[in-house]
Amino acid sequence: MSVFSKFVASVSANPQGAACGALLAAGAAFVIKQRMGATRRKPSKSAIVVAKTDEGRKAAVDSLFFKRLWTIIKIIIPGLFTKESGYLIFVAASLVARTYCDLWMIQTGTAIESAIIGRSIPEFKSGLFKFIYAMPLLALMNNLLKFGLDKLKLCFRIRLTSHLYQIYLKGFVYYKMANLDNRIANADQLLTQDVEKFCNTFADLYSNLTKPILDIFLFAKQLAMSIGYQGPGMMFGYLILSGWFLTRLRHPTGRLTAAEQQLEGNFRFVNSRLITNSEEVAFYQGDSREKVTIMNSFHRLVTHLNKFIKFRLSVGIVDSIVAKYLATTLGYMIVSRPFLNLTNPKYENARHSQLLEDYYNSGRTLVRMSQATGRVVLAGREMTKLAGYAARVSELMVVLQDLNRGMYQRTMVTNHNHGQTESTQNETDDPGQPLVPGSGTLILQDHVIKFDHVPLVTPNGDVLVKNLDFEVRSGMNCLVCGPNGCGKSSLFRILGELWPLFGGRLVKPDKSKLFYVPQRPYMTVGTLRDQLIYPDTKQQMSEKGLLDAKLAEYLQQVHLGYLLERENGWDAEQDWMDVLSGGEKQRIAMARLFYHKPQFAILDECTSAVSVDVEGFMYTRCREVGITLFTVSHRKSLWKYHEYVLQFDGRGSCEFKRIDPETDEFGS
Amino acid sequence: MSVFSKFVASVSANPQGAACGALLAAGAAFVIKQRMGATRRKPSKSAIVVAKTDEGRKAAVDSLFFKRLWTIIKIIIPGLFTKESGYLIFVAASLVARTYCDLWMIQTGTAIESAIIGRSIPEFKSGLFKFIYAMPLLALMNNLLKFGLDKLKLCFRIRLTSHLYQIYLKGFVYYKMANLDNRIANADQLLTQDVEKFCNTFADLYSNLTKPILDIFLFAKQLAMSIGYQGPGMMFGYLILSGWFLTRLRHPTGRLTAAEQQLEGNFRFVNSRLITNSEEVAFYQGDSREKVTIMNSFHRLVTHLNKFIKFRLSVGIVDSIVAKYLATTLGYMIVSRPFLNLTNPKYENARHSQLLEDYYNSGRTLVRMSQATGRVVLAGREMTKLAGYAARVSELMVVLQDLNRGMYQRTMVTNHNHGQTESTQNETDDPGQPLVPGSGTLILQDHVIKFDHVPLVTPNGDVLVKNLDFEVRSGMNCLVCGPNGCGKSSLFRILGELWPLFGGRLVKPDKSKLFYVPQRPYMTVGTLRDQLIYPDTKQQMSEKGLLDAKLAEYLQQVHLGYLLERENGWDAEQDWMDVLSGGEKQRIAMARLFYHKPQFAILDECTSAVSVDVEGFMYTRCREVGITLFTVSHRKSLWKYHEYVLQFDGRGSCEFKRIDPETDEFGS
Repeated sequence: MSVFSKFVASVSANPQGAACGALLAAGAAFVIKQRMGATRRKPSKSAIVVAKTDEGRKAAVDSLFFKRLWTIIKIIIPGLFTKESGYLIFVAASLVARTYCDLWMIQTGTAIESAIIGRSIPEFKSGLFKFIYAMPLLALMNNLLKFGLDKLKLCFRIRLTSHLYQIYLKGFVYYKMANLDNRIANADQLLTQDVEKFCNTFADLYSNLTKPILDIFLFAKQLAMSIGYQGPGMMFGYLILSGWFLTRLRHPTGRLTAAEQQLEGNFRFVNSRLITNSEEVAFYQGDSREKVTIMNSFHRLVTHLNKFIKFRLSVGIVDSIVAKYLATTLGYMIVSRPFLNLTNPKYENARHSQLLEDYYNSGRTLVRMSQATGRVVLAGREMTKLAGYAARVSELMVVLQDLNRGMYQRTMVTNHNHGQTESTQNETDDPGQPLVPGSGTLILQDHVIKFDHVPLVTPNGDVLVKNLDFEVRSGMNCLVCGPNGCGKSSLFRILGELWPLFGGRLVKPDKSKLFYVPQRPYMTVGTLRDQLIYPDTKQQMSEKGLLDAKLAEYLQQVHLGYLLERENGWDAEQDWMDVLSGGEKQRIAMARLFYHKPQFAILDECTSAVSVDVEGFMYTRCREVGITLFTVSHRKSLWKYHEYVLQFDGRGSCEFKRIDPETDEFGS
Repeated sequence: MSVFSKFVASVSANPQGAACGALLAAGAAFVIKQRMGATRRKPSKSAIVVAKTDEGRKAAVDSLFFKRLWTIIKIIIPGLFTKESGYLIFVAASLVARTYCDLWMIQTGTAIESAIIGRSIPEFKSGLFKFIYAMPLLALMNNLLKFGLDKLKLCFRIRLTSHLYQIYLKGFVYYKMANLDNRIANADQLLTQDVEKFCNTFADLYSNLTKPILDIFLFAKQLAMSIGYQGPGMMFGYLILSGWFLTRLRHPTGRLTAAEQQLEGNFRFVNSRLITNSEEVAFYQGDSREKVTIMNSFHRLVTHLNKFIKFRLSVGIVDSIVAKYLATTLGYMIVSRPFLNLTNPKYENARHSQLLEDYYNSGRTLVRMSQATGRVVLAGREMTKLAGYAARVSELMVVLQDLNRGMYQRTMVTNHNHGQTESTQNETDDPGQPLVPGSGTLILQDHVIKFDHVPLVTPNGDVLVKNLDFEVRSGMNCLVCGPNGCGKSSLFRILGELWPLFGGRLVKPDKSKLFYVPQRPYMTVGTLRDQLIYPDTKQQMSEKGLLDAKLAEYLQQVHLGYLLERENGWDAEQDWMDVLSGGEKQRIAMARLFYHKPQFAILDECTSAVSVDVEGFMYTRCREVGITLFTVSHRKSLWKYHEYVLQFDGRGSCEFKRIDPETDEFGS
C-alpha cells in the first residue's frame, strides 16, 4: 500500500510528468501497432494466389485496412449533404444528448439519495417529481439514438448494395464470378449478409467510439472541477498504459481468430462441396470417404477452438485484473486522496453529508469515466471484426472491378512439358506459346458468324480445340455434333461472349441479335407472361407493340395453349421451374424464340422432350421469319433443316462441311 | 406523488395482497402466452407446403418450440453422467460463485467508501488490501464462467454435429436433400452456422436465465434482511406486471422479425438463384430483367426494415419508461420508506454514517435485483431467437429422418388433365394412376440387371419413359443412346438407387458391385492416391492387399505415368479439380475403374477427351477382368465393344435390341 500511495503521490505531485508518460506510452503503442501491421501484411498478400475461400485471408487492423475502409466509406457516405452524413450528425447529437441525460440522472439520483439519507421528505418528493417529469424525454433520447443508428445502418446498406449490384449485374460479371474466377466462392453470402454485417459493425463502431470519447471528455471536465486535474490525468495514464499492455497481451488473438475463421470456412466449404458434387459422390458411394474429409475438417476446428478457449481463459484473467480490478483500486486511491489528506482545509469542518455528496459526485463520475475508457480500449477488438468484414467487401469490390475489365484469376491446368504423354492428347499445348485470356479480336457485323483461327480454351486453360475456322451466313442452318466435353458448349460460350477469346479473330453480330436456347430451359421469377417474353419486361413488350393476343398465338404454335387456362392467365405467378414439365419448359423456350426473332439462334438439345410435329413447325417457322439456326442434336429427323455440319471429334480437332445426302454418319 | 406513495404504502401494508397480486399477474401472463402460442401455431403448419426457404417459417415461443427443444436437448445432453451435464453444473456453480463475489465486492466497496467518507486511513488501507488480495480469485471466478460456457457450447456443438452427420452421410441422404427434396435449400448453412448458433444461443440462455434467477433470490434474501420482505415483494410484483405488459406490447415484434427473416431469405434466394442459373441468364442477356427481380426483393426488404425501425422506436420509448425509469422510481420509493418514516425507532438516534451504510447496502442490492429481474424479462426476446434456431435445426432433423426413410417432399409437375395436348407428349400421364415414389420392388441379385415394367420418372413427377423392359447379364456390354433429357441419366440414377422407383420390378446386384463413371469426373479432397482409390481409404487399400506399385501400373495403363513425377508422388495434395485437365481427369476415373473392378460399370460419356488407343485399351481390359459395361457415347469407334443397344427416342419410349452389322443408325 505504501509503495502504491507513494507512487500515486509522486506522480500526482508532478502532473506534467504524468502527462508526458501518458504521451510516451501512447506513442510507443502507435509505433508497435504500425510495426506489427507491417509484418502482418505480408502473408495476406501472398495468400491471394492460393486462397480458396476468402475467409482464410488475414484481416488485421493495419494501413491496408484503413485504405480499404476509406474506399468503402467513399461509397457509403458519398457527400457532405447526404442523408448519411445527416444521420451521422444525428447519432452524434443523440449521443451528446444522452450523455447529458446521464449526467442529469446522476445529479438527480444523488439529490434523491441525499434526501433519503438526510431523511428530508420535501427534498425527496421534489427530486422524485423532477425525475418523473423528465422520464418521457429521457426515454425519447435513449431511443432516438437507437433509431438513428438503425437508420444509419440501413442507409449504408442501401448505398453499398446498390453500388455493388450496379457492377455485379453488368456485362455478365455475375456469370464470370460464378464460372470464370475462383477467388470468390460465395457471392450471394457476400452480397447479402456480409454487406449487412459490415454496415452494422461500422455504424456500431462509430457510435461505440463517439460515445465513450465524448464521455471521457465530459466526465474528465466534471472530475477536474471536483477533484482537480491530477485524478483524471492519472486515470488516463493508467488506461493508456494498460490498453497498450493488454493489446500486446491479446496479440495472438488476431492470429487465432483468423485461424478459426479459416477452419470454419473450410468446414463450410467441404460441406458445400459435397452438395455440389452430391450426385457423383452418391454414384461412387463415397459417403464414408467424404465423411472422413468432413469429420477431419470438423476435428481440426474443434481442436483449434479448444486451444483458443484455453488461451482466452488465461488472457481473460490478466485482462480483468488489469482493466477492471487494478483500475478500480486506482480509482479508489485517486478519489480518496483529498478526503484522506487530513490537513485538507476544504474538509476541515465539513458536515458528513457534504463529504458524502462530494464523494459520490466524483466517485460515480470516475467509475463512468473508467468504464468509458475501457470501452475505447475494447473497441480495438471490434476494429478487428470490422477489418474482417472490410476485407471481404473490398475483396468483392476488387474482383468485381477486375471482372468488369475482363480480367479473372483461377487455378490453371498444370502445363509442364511432361515427357511421356501421347501426342494426340488435347491438353498438350505448344510450349512457349502462352495462352492469354482476352487476346483475340472481336468484330461486330450483322448476318455473319466467322471463326478465324480461334482456339477453344476453357477458362482454366484447358485447350479443347486448337484452331477453329468456319463461316456461317444468314440463311445457312448448321448442325453441331460431337461427344460431350468436346467443345460444343465452349463454342457457344465464346459466341455468347461469356468466355474470353484466347486468340484469333471472331466476326459476329451484336449479342442482342444472337439467341441461345439452352438444354436446361431457364424460367425467371415472375408471371407466365414474363416467361414468354424473357428477358423483356412487360413495358418493353408494349414498346415493341406486342399484345397478349400475339403471345397467346405463340403459345398455340408450340401446343401450349392450355397453359393459359390451367395457370389462370398471363399474370399468374408460380414456381415455374418446378411446375412445368421438361417438355413444357422446352416449348416455352421455343415460343420465347418466336417472340424475340433474333438473327441467329443456338438450339442446344432444346427439343429433346418435344414431339416431332412441334419440332418440325419450329424449324420451318424459323426459316420463314429469317432466324438462322445452330442446332446441337443427334436426331436424324433434323438433318433436313440444315445445310452445314460442324463436327467435333473430342480429340482436339473439328471439321466444317456441307451436308450431302451421303453424310449419314451422325444423328440417331 | 401522493397517489404513488399511498399506493406503495397501502400495498406494502398488506404484503399478502402484494404476493397475491404478483401471483395473479404471473398467472395471467402465462394464460395469455399460451393462448397466443395456440393462435400462432396455425400458420406455421400450413406454411410447410409453400415454404421455399426455411427462414420463412414462423418460430414462436410456444409448445411446439418446447417440444422441438426437448428433442434437441436429448441429443446434446445424452445423460446425467456426461461431460455436458458436468459443464452445466460447472457453469451454474461458477454463476453462484460469481454472485457471491459480487456481493463481497459490494460489501468491500461499501467498507472502503465508508472509510473514505469517514476519513479513516487505517480502515481504508485494510479495505483496499482485502480487495487487492482477493483480485486473482475474483478474476479467476469471472473467467472460469466464460471458460465453462465456451466449453459447454463446444460440447453441444460436437454432439449435435456428430448426430446430424451420422444421418446426413448415410444412405445418400445428402444427395436426396440436395436433389430430391426441396424443403431445405441450404444444408451447408444449417449444418455449420445454424448448428453453432443454436448451441451458442442455448448455452447463453441457460447462463442468462440461471444467473439472474439466482441473483434475484440471493439479493431478495439480503434485502429482506435489511428492509423487510415488502420491498423485494413489491419489486417482484411490479416486474411481473411490467413484464407481462411489455410482452403484450412487443407482441408484433415476433411477426415483424419473421417477416424480416423471410424477406432476407428471399433476397438471398434470388441471389443464389442467379448464381445457379448464371449461364442461362448470361446467354439470354437477362441481367436487366434479373436486376429488377433482385432489386424488387431488396426494396421490399428495405421498406419492411423502415417500418420495423419506426415500430421499434415507439415500443422502445414505452419500454424504457416502464422497465427502466418507473422501476427506478419504484426502487427509490421502496428504499426510502424506512428512512422517511420519521417515527422509525431504528433510525431515531442513528449516526449519519450508519444511515448511509444501511442505505447503500439496500440501495445497491435493490438496483442489482431490478437489473437481474429485467434480464429475466429480456430473456423472452432471446427465447424467440432460440426458437428460430430450434425451428431450423429440428426442421433439418425432420427432413433427415424423412429422407432416411425414403420419403421426400417437392413441388410436383402440374398434372391437370388438360384438353388440347398432343397424344405423343411424354408428360401426359394416365389420369387416375397416381405416381407414388418408392412403390416399385427392388431385388438384389448378382451378375444381372433387369428392368421389369419400370417407369422412368423424375423426382418431381415428370414421366420420361412410361415403361422400361430389358435384361442385361454379365458379359453383355450395352450401348445407351438418345438425345439429352431423354432419360439416360435418370436410368442410371434409378440403377444407382439415387432416385426412388415409381413402380415395376428392378433386379440388380448390390450398389457396391455397380460403378458409375460420370461425365464430370469427381476428384476428392486429398492425395493423388486418394483420387485413384476413391472412395476407398489408404487403409482399405492395404486391406485389399494392393500396393502403390500396382496403382502406378494402373496409371501407366491410362498413360498418366508422368503425373507421379509431375505432382511429386502419391502423397501430393492438390486442388485436383482444377489442376488436372479434362482428359487427365477422365483417365484418372478409368484407372479408378481398374482399381475397383465392379461387376457392372456405367460409362457416361466418360472418354470424350481421351485418345482412341487409351479408350480401346480400357474396353479390352474391362472385358478381360469381367467388368460389364453400359456406355453412353456417340462414338462409332465404340460399337465393336458392345452387344446390345438401349435406344431412347426422347418422346417417352425406348427400344432394347441386339447390335447387328446393319444397325448403323447411331453414333458418330
